[in-house]
Amino acid sequence: MMSVDIPNQGAPAGELPASWTVIAEGGVTSASGFSAAGLNSGLKADGVPDMALVVAEETCAVAGVFTKSVFCAAPITVCREHLESSSYGTARAMVINSGNANAATGEPGLKAARNAAEITAKVLDCAPEDVLVASTGVIGVHLPGEPFLYGVPAAASALSPQGGHDAACAIMTTDTVPKEFAISYESAFPEVAGPRVTIGGMAKGSGMIMPDMATMIAVLTTDAPLVPEATFAALGKAVSTSFNKVTVDTDTSTNDTCILFANGKASSNEDPTGSKAPAITEGTPAFDEFAAALAYVCETLARKIAADGEGATKLITVTVEGAASEADADAAARAVANSPLVKTAIFGHDANWGRIAMALGKSGAAFKQEQASIDIMGMPVCRKGLTVPFDEEEARRRFKEPEIVLHADLGAGPHTATVWTCDLSHEYVTINGDYRT
Amino acid sequence: MMSVDIPNQGAPAGELPASWTVIAEGGVTSASGFSAAGLNSGLKADGVPDMALVVAEETCAVAGVFTKSVFCAAPITVCREHLESSSYGTARAMVINSGNANAATGEPGLKAARNAAEITAKVLDCAPEDVLVASTGVIGVHLPGEPFLYGVPAAASALSPQGGHDAACAIMTTDTVPKEFAISYESAFPEVAGPRVTIGGMAKGSGMIMPDMATMIAVLTTDAPLVPEATFAALGKAVSTSFNKVTVDTDTSTNDTCILFANGKASSNEDPTGSKAPAITEGTPAFDEFAAALAYVCETLARKIAADGEGATKLITVTVEGAASEADADAAARAVANSPLVKTAIFGHDANWGRIAMALGKSGAAFKQEQASIDIMGMPVCRKGLTVPFDEEEARRRFKEPEIVLHADLGAGPHTATVWTCDLSHEYVTINGDYRT
Repeated sequence: MMSVDIPNQGAPAGELPASWTVIAEGGVTSASGFSAAGLNSGLKADGVPDMALVVAEETCAVAGVFTKSVFCAAPITVCREHLESSSYGTARAMVINSGNANAATGEPGLKAARNAAEITAKVLDCAPEDVLVASTGVIGVHLPGEPFLYGVPAAASALSPQGGHDAACAIMTTDTVPKEFAISYESAFPEVAGPRVTIGGMAKGSGMIMPDMATMIAVLTTDAPLVPEATFAALGKAVSTSFNKVTVDTDTSTNDTCILFANGKASSNEDPTGSKAPAITEGTPAFDEFAAALAYVCETLARKIAADGEGATKLITVTVEGAASEADADAAARAVANSPLVKTAIFGHDANWGRIAMALGKSGAAFKQEQASIDIMGMPVCRKGLTVPFDEEEARRRFKEPEIVLHADLGAGPHTATVWTCDLSHEYVTINGDYRT
Repeated sequence: MMSVDIPNQGAPAGELPASWTVIAEGGVTSASGFSAAGLNSGLKADGVPDMALVVAEETCAVAGVFTKSVFCAAPITVCREHLESSSYGTARAMVINSGNANAATGEPGLKAARNAAEITAKVLDCAPEDVLVASTGVIGVHLPGEPFLYGVPAAASALSPQGGHDAACAIMTTDTVPKEFAISYESAFPEVAGPRVTIGGMAKGSGMIMPDMATMIAVLTTDAPLVPEATFAALGKAVSTSFNKVTVDTDTSTNDTCILFANGKASSNEDPTGSKAPAITEGTPAFDEFAAALAYVCETLARKIAADGEGATKLITVTVEGAASEADADAAARAVANSPLVKTAIFGHDANWGRIAMALGKSGAAFKQEQASIDIMGMPVCRKGLTVPFDEEEARRRFKEPEIVLHADLGAGPHTATVWTCDLSHEYVTINGDYRT
């Protein structure tokens, strides 16, 4: 098992806005008013952490984005029930187990997921509808209730504003490293957002990567004062340019879940009237400011997922520009990122642009090959559809970087998309080709 | 390098109609009136065969189906020019080289492809428009003209009705075995089709599998008397249920080409008037009879391609039934066949139906998980969305077969689709991860 050591805590290269600060070792409990814990509940026999609890001091705005799989898992159904509109509402806590996906488990699976929410609600003294649930692990195996009877009270006793890291470790499956990130920003609209807003989160796996250990799960928390609708709008935007742009092996899981809690503490702290009414609504400058920062946190967590893809030796960033539409840009970038031939070439440190051309050509994006250009790690390798001689020595040198940047210009319009993936290695086949014979 | 040794010359299991006969060691010259040759023209430095010539005695009906890639290769453009309607017309010969794809080569590439047709036309004393061309090999490298100056006359001298096997060997790239197949059938409509019709063909690679050695190429010949439109109609139907249902790694090549020549010899041989007017038109019983036999030949060649997929240790046949539409059936079967997690599980002899459920769930096909059933090698493993206990010992025994059959019933309608692929092995990564460092 390996993971790619991407620098700068996994965040994209480039300067941050001056008002933004990356929080050292930040995570899901960086924003004020949130606590978390992670521990072994007995689901995983080997004693490693397998249950995480994230709790807001009070019920607050929350939004969720879930897998579109028809074979979606029981906890997804329960989350949708608990979010009044199916995608946003209010909640107070989230309980997550690893080791069992509670997917393809039918009616008993739904009961098990509801049971987990009920146990948590009882311990925290809130309504079951205020508890969200997520599971990740093996598909098609009944999720027992006992681990929750023991684990949830134990986790509740261990809840701490420093507990984010334990929670991030407890949701890991085939992940080789926990994935956490947080930033804060000085708001240009302190009367609405509060003077300083914090956004943090944790994530695991990748929706497209996990086999038996199905799932991408991300939990984000912020002290920004958002109305529930705005929570969902900001999360939807951020997911579309981050978690939805990660593709490790094209395999969407049954359990993909991304949740954002927003408790409003950033502004209430400064509110002379003591009112905690949420203040950021969609379409306002304070919303755009928040949405940009949330997208950055999600993008960083998404990059960490791609870099920790099964068997990954390289993080691969594919950017397509010059596309005729946003859909074309996405399709072209995704075709390159999903191509086993591109991914094996990068594993082999091979600047094989013919495979990138092949992937662009089959993507369905509209363009003319005579207008297409391709760069690998900043080196022009194809211009106007024709090969460009390049220095093989220099290519080898650049392939030593942990992040491989592929860039294509279709010359067909103004649209751009970026997608993250990892290379395809022998290790991937070993991990997933699990010899049971 | 390995290939899967599928029994029965690679043809699907099951009884053939009584009027059909598989021709032992049949291929592209089994039908009367066709000859072929294959030899080394100097394109491949190691002296292995790299140029094939297939020739009809006289100009005859022909149809072509080509890659949809925007980055399509120069020979595709030239074939489309030479077929008046872009997809069917008349022609006499086809010259194919391996070792160079003539793709991403711009205007010089088009000249090189036209040059190959012109040289062949001169040698055969026909019009350049009567010659089709195909190339397979490395992308983005100029195709030299000298090998054709030497190779085409040499191949023309070697032309023989027994030359099909040499031609099939000359079009190989990463293929480990040549791929040929032919059948004949006693027509129920001898006054139209002739008493006995022969259909044969050769194929190489897989459109979705080949990296530097891009391409699926298939050349089919028949003595059935078809009008050009009927040639195209029959080929289109056959390709849709055969070559278009093979997916090795989702990567469509720049050069995919499938050509059918129909010279009408089957009926003219028996025509007391000596007239050779083509007689089979679309929508007639004789057309349906021919189309079914052609589809069987194409399906067999497609299965041979999947079984010889890079690094393949198993041929995988995925059948989805109970879909709400044909498109849903295809999408669901393709999602399973393309899933790296399914393919690595089969490489590992792991009856991991959760991965099949995951792939069905993400496919976009409409169904309810409570209605879905899955069988692996005839063993029920999932019913109504829930796990079914099965005998692990028996599963291990069945996984020893060269062909692994996966079957899903979505319980959502009457539509069915079958797709062929191969497993994903360490060898695939080794072949494509070409360590240049």
